[in-house]
Amino acid sequence: MTADTKKSTHSMQPEDTPQLRALYASFEQQHIKPLWAQVGNLMPQHPRPRAVPHIWKWADLLPLARQSGELIPVGRGGERRALGLANPGLGGNAYISPTLWCAIQYLGPRETAPEHRHSQNAFRFVVEGEGVWTVVNGDPVRMSRGDLLLTPGWNFHGHQNNTDSPMAWIDGLDIPFSYMNDVGFFDIGSDRLTNYATPQFSRSERLWSHPGLRPLSALQDTASSPLGAYRWEFTDRALTEQLLLEEEGQPATMEHGHAAIRYVNPTTGGDVMATIRCEFHRLRAGTETSTRREVGSTIFQVFQGRGAAVIDGVTHKLDIGDIFVIPSWVRWSLKAEAQFDLFRFSDAPIMERLNFARTLVEGGPP
Amino acid sequence: MTADTKKSTHSMQPEDTPQLRALYASFEQQHIKPLWAQVGNLMPQHPRPRAVPHIWKWADLLPLARQSGELIPVGRGGERRALGLANPGLGGNAYISPTLWCAIQYLGPRETAPEHRHSQNAFRFVVEGEGVWTVVNGDPVRMSRGDLLLTPGWNFHGHQNNTDSPMAWIDGLDIPFSYMNDVGFFDIGSDRLTNYATPQFSRSERLWSHPGLRPLSALQDTASSPLGAYRWEFTDRALTEQLLLEEEGQPATMEHGHAAIRYVNPTTGGDVMATIRCEFHRLRAGTETSTRREVGSTIFQVFQGRGAAVIDGVTHKLDIGDIFVIPSWVRWSLKAEAQFDLFRFSDAPIMERLNFARTLVEGGPP
Amino acid sequence: MTADTKKSTHSMQPEDTPQLRALYASFEQQHIKPLWAQVGNLMPQHPRPRAVPHIWKWADLLPLARQSGELIPVGRGGERRALGLANPGLGGNAYISPTLWCAIQYLGPRETAPEHRHSQNAFRFVVEGEGVWTVVNGDPVRMSRGDLLLTPGWNFHGHQNNTDSPMAWIDGLDIPFSYMNDVGFFDIGSDRLTNYATPQFSRSERLWSHPGLRPLSALQDTASSPLGAYRWEFTDRALTEQLLLEEEGQPATMEHGHAAIRYVNPTTGGDVMATIRCEFHRLRAGTETSTRREVGSTIFQVFQGRGAAVIDGVTHKLDIGDIFVIPSWVRWSLKAEAQFDLFRFSDAPIMERLNFARTLVEGGPP
Amino acid sequence: MTADTKKSTHSMQPEDTPQLRALYASFEQQHIKPLWAQVGNLMPQHPRPRAVPHIWKWADLLPLARQSGELIPVGRGGERRALGLANPGLGGNAYISPTLWCAIQYLGPRETAPEHRHSQNAFRFVVEGEGVWTVVNGDPVRMSRGDLLLTPGWNFHGHQNNTDSPMAWIDGLDIPFSYMNDVGFFDIGSDRLTNYATPQFSRSERLWSHPGLRPLSALQDTASSPLGAYRWEFTDRALTEQLLLEEEGQPATMEHGHAAIRYVNPTTGGDVMATIRCEFHRLRAGTETSTRREVGSTIFQVFQGRGAAVIDGVTHKLDIGDIFVIPSWVRWSLKAEAQFDLFRFSDAPIMERLNFARTLVEGGPP
Repeated sequence: MTADTKKSTHSMQPEDTPQLRALYASFEQQHIKPLWAQVGNLMPQHPRPRAVPHIWKWADLLPLARQSGELIPVGRGGERRALGLANPGLGGNAYISPTLWCAIQYLGPRETAPEHRHSQNAFRFVVEGEGVWTVVNGDPVRMSRGDLLLTPGWNFHGHQNNTDSPMAWIDGLDIPFSYMNDVGFFDIGSDRLTNYATPQFSRSERLWSHPGLRPLSALQDTASSPLGAYRWEFTDRALTEQLLLEEEGQPATMEHGHAAIRYVNPTTGGDVMATIRCEFHRLRAGTETSTRREVGSTIFQVFQGRGAAVIDGVTHKLDIGDIFVIPSWVRWSLKAEAQFDLFRFSDAPIMERLNFARTLVEGGPP
Repeated sequence: MTADTKKSTHSMQPEDTPQLRALYASFEQQHIKPLWAQVGNLMPQHPRPRAVPHIWKWADLLPLARQSGELIPVGRGGERRALGLANPGLGGNAYISPTLWCAIQYLGPRETAPEHRHSQNAFRFVVEGEGVWTVVNGDPVRMSRGDLLLTPGWNFHGHQNNTDSPMAWIDGLDIPFSYMNDVGFFDIGSDRLTNYATPQFSRSERLWSHPGLRPLSALQDTASSPLGAYRWEFTDRALTEQLLLEEEGQPATMEHGHAAIRYVNPTTGGDVMATIRCEFHRLRAGTETSTRREVGSTIFQVFQGRGAAVIDGVTHKLDIGDIFVIPSWVRWSLKAEAQFDLFRFSDAPIMERLNFARTLVEGGPP
Repeated sequence: MTADTKKSTHSMQPEDTPQLRALYASFEQQHIKPLWAQVGNLMPQHPRPRAVPHIWKWADLLPLARQSGELIPVGRGGERRALGLANPGLGGNAYISPTLWCAIQYLGPRETAPEHRHSQNAFRFVVEGEGVWTVVNGDPVRMSRGDLLLTPGWNFHGHQNNTDSPMAWIDGLDIPFSYMNDVGFFDIGSDRLTNYATPQFSRSERLWSHPGLRPLSALQDTASSPLGAYRWEFTDRALTEQLLLEEEGQPATMEHGHAAIRYVNPTTGGDVMATIRCEFHRLRAGTETSTRREVGSTIFQVFQGRGAAVIDGVTHKLDIGDIFVIPSWVRWSLKAEAQFDLFRFSDAPIMERLNFARTLVEGGPP
Repeated sequence: MTADTKKSTHSMQPEDTPQLRALYASFEQQHIKPLWAQVGNLMPQHPRPRAVPHIWKWADLLPLARQSGELIPVGRGGERRALGLANPGLGGNAYISPTLWCAIQYLGPRETAPEHRHSQNAFRFVVEGEGVWTVVNGDPVRMSRGDLLLTPGWNFHGHQNNTDSPMAWIDGLDIPFSYMNDVGFFDIGSDRLTNYATPQFSRSERLWSHPGLRPLSALQDTASSPLGAYRWEFTDRALTEQLLLEEEGQPATMEHGHAAIRYVNPTTGGDVMATIRCEFHRLRAGTETSTRREVGSTIFQVFQGRGAAVIDGVTHKLDIGDIFVIPSWVRWSLKAEAQFDLFRFSDAPIMERLNFARTLVEGGPP
């Protein structure tokens, strides 16, 4: 019998008397809530998230983004034409999970999203399209298919679409965490971009995107990655090599048929930002991952291939661009029909740094 | 002009047309919330907590705790006779701040609070009284006036009152943070205590409470302090020495007339637990501290002496046992009429580990 | 067959021809030494120290120190009346091991040893006597029986004997390491002490010697311990408690009957200085420790009690004050006839920080 | 006046009496050396290395390596055909500095150097040539011009020349440090290689050589870099970009006209091995670096271009392949006639981890 199931019968439910009512009224007046009236909810046996697993279909999202492009101008004040995915369990806020924000952002031909900066950490992942540059502290970063772009907290950034076609991508931030815990600062910057150049590679890449090499001009470790763009060609090659090494009998994959990389801060080898972990997973056709439960919430976006997610025992077929969220301690696994590529982000750095991380791999070691 | 103040006039408020309404209806249906409709609230210029500063008077709390002792039995299910302090700004939850829980716990003569364990980190601080032992994983820890006692996450613990008098103390935990972020696990343990001994010193103290000395049997660093009790006599002596050293012209105090210690994990020199910082502050009579703003929420309890807190420009006279909370980025300072001693706890480790910490000392360096 | 034993017959010994002699002559002229002529010596199968195990008897040392006191004045230039223990295997240098220096220092009645500072890290351990104060950066530190005193690198320090009796103690430093690796700087300071006060407790103790408490005025971690004195009463109590806890069936000792503490830097929980580890060991009467081999060199001084060291299979009976050195990878264990107390220091931090540490406990896990 | 210069006149030189002689004789007999007789040498005012700056000309080294190839077979026992550079100040040992070993290794057509492993950390740098594979724990690593190859401590490794031409390169190890401090272990392995494949890229590169990407199969940090090869094309590109960024007015170079990278462990962002730092420096034509003094010893090899080193005020013109050593605290700078590329390695990780590092940039901040 558990703390939860005993709630109705536990020993601390006193008889309802006038004195008790008077006491409870005094509690109310003095801004007091007794633990015994709420412990089962506040401190459940295991995480019991209000957030629910949910899938947003790209086929639904993209048309809405396009319509927003027609109806909503982009500019100062609203700042971004971003459609936040609102977890159905989280009461109408644009929180995909209690900690994370995920939005599809849309920039029409020749549009500019003005510069600002905020404490919230942000990344962008590009499932399709090209032609937009994000300017981070004056450094223009090309956005192309399969790229991960970072704008860690307190860096000025804006976007410009340099083409005659619109472009959409996803933004990930720690807005809910920042909002709930009152940590956020926000500054508006230039209404126009501070740099309209459209170089192939950003300065940050030219300085940092060399494997195992660190500039002597930047030996101080940084809380967030100094590398602004993680290019698809590198991600793809790393995953390809892992699967080839596996075929050669070498240890390289996370589990059989399942290659995966974590995007890291080259100054530390740790997560790219203090609150958000970014990864990319590739399953060989026919692979089914082990089933996991993890403390913390995680979001996937299908990048290419064909497969499904099994969440809490239910199989969901997935198409390119689909985004799904797995709340804390919910069972999940992935299945690949064809080679199946997924971008992933999560709040795992929060859980690990605060000593709350737990993972249970079913059939694995306890 | 700021993002906030421009909200009403910003460039992204489109004309209200049937198409726009249809789009917004589609958003609703697809679980989408647009950023432009909420950015000013979600991402304010600086932290704008819903939590408010508030003071709970010990003179109000203690009688209510005593009445609870008469009306509410303690036992399994409700687990603890704990009166949670509910921040008036946080909508009726027993959250003293978005991250922290603070309660007055009351144990009558010869009562036992049953054993359990949970992921949530907990401490107790004793403003008055004695006679209770907390049993942590089978190790009985005496609770006396001025002591800080730890029960870090996932350690079984219960309490027993070994005397004919009741005792009250405060509990501090990271329950709101754990609940909001879905990280908590809970296990019930023995209904009776696993150890009814009442030793003067716990095993953890006998092993760890020797300054600068570490047992060779415990060289592995731990996420939480292995020391279960921080005794008042040591705290008092440390603060006394700081003020004496200051009088001798030595650097020892935090600022003139303001001595302070942080309770630390002896295996690392860092905070006692991954989410909660505990400190003790002493002001010499007549001292007024500098005014600070800090990211994160902090709670003080007056331990002894006479003084006041100045919160957001308002001076609040304080008596022994009074508990007050200062939400994120709210201005505060302390003033001592007589020597003024305060226990303090906060969520600063969360802010520092996640790179959100900021402190502004007015008149200090930027 | 090993690299060493094959040296005489290995395949790289070419025939002695005029061409070979000419080549070897060219090597000499060009400052070249071929690896093949020396690999077995330079890179043995396991550490094969030139340093040898050796015991210095306190009964021999103390009289020589006294005679030095009569014949050698103390002062600037020679700096200290210190008798360095010279490992018989290390060719006449005052190196007790390749990394460490150990000396008996002697200060006559009312004498002063002048102030200086150096990169070399130093400690003092007091096996008997009292009456001397070491002044570290102006802070006088009382030296009493059983105390460990630190003067980490680059702190000015001098000594004064405030009594009419002489006093002797041991100094431990990383002089050989510093000398061999060319890292040392040296500054002379005041010929007289900068502070002749003789307080019971140093400022550093008054600030730092409170278990688990850290001053808010000193939150920056330091490379060396900020605590200048580790008092015998604390060491003794910690060891006493470990043995009592063991008797109560609690895990507390390093192995059965063997209590031990490491002196640590309270800002990190790590070693007191970057190159030198200090520990204190107590064996219950009748205890024999397991036999160990460790990379790095270690020195013990008998503090009190009766026992023996077994070094490379040979048992050496030990008396109070005796000092012995165990070079790298030499087998050792300790045996107690009566309760047996030993101070220990070693170069283990060097080995651990540079990833060379290895320990083999015979009969233990590999 | 310094401790050194006062040595001849200091106050601790007692009169030469029969008693003194008897005392000194007793010292000798008891393995004691008094500090006052040696402090000036052992603890100089600043590092006064016995090692001297020295330059080995590639034009001298390579012919001797070739002759060795003709006269000395390679094989078990001698292990490697390696010509160790012996610092003229270090008494005939093959130590280029007190901590480091540097050798030119030569492998004839179709030769194999047998497998072994040792605690000593090793790298190879290839100034010219190709055709050799180093097999590290069964993973064949191609060696080509400009590449840095790692064989960190305790990894089995051998070499094979797969071509009809000989090849020479430099080996860098911490042999002197390991030998002096008795930390080394050595195991012989297979006489033949365990893998004769000659892949373009090693497994370690295929797993680790992707900028900012970490395999999820290898999340544990390692003491040494898991990446076995740092290819010239990446080094060259990183340096080229730094100079281009500098031209564009961006901060990227170490000082004006001076680009530099450090080779790092991708799991930590720190040095590739616990004892050896590896870097590559490029000077634009006409650049002269600032003059530096550093604690620790450093070695350069000229890779390409034309320039000179100024060591202790003396200018040495340098040619491709030339190797020079700068002992601790010796002044040095570099001058480029044409673009000037140099590989560098040093013992800086030892100095930093043990808190002995100091750098003085002349004309820079103190």
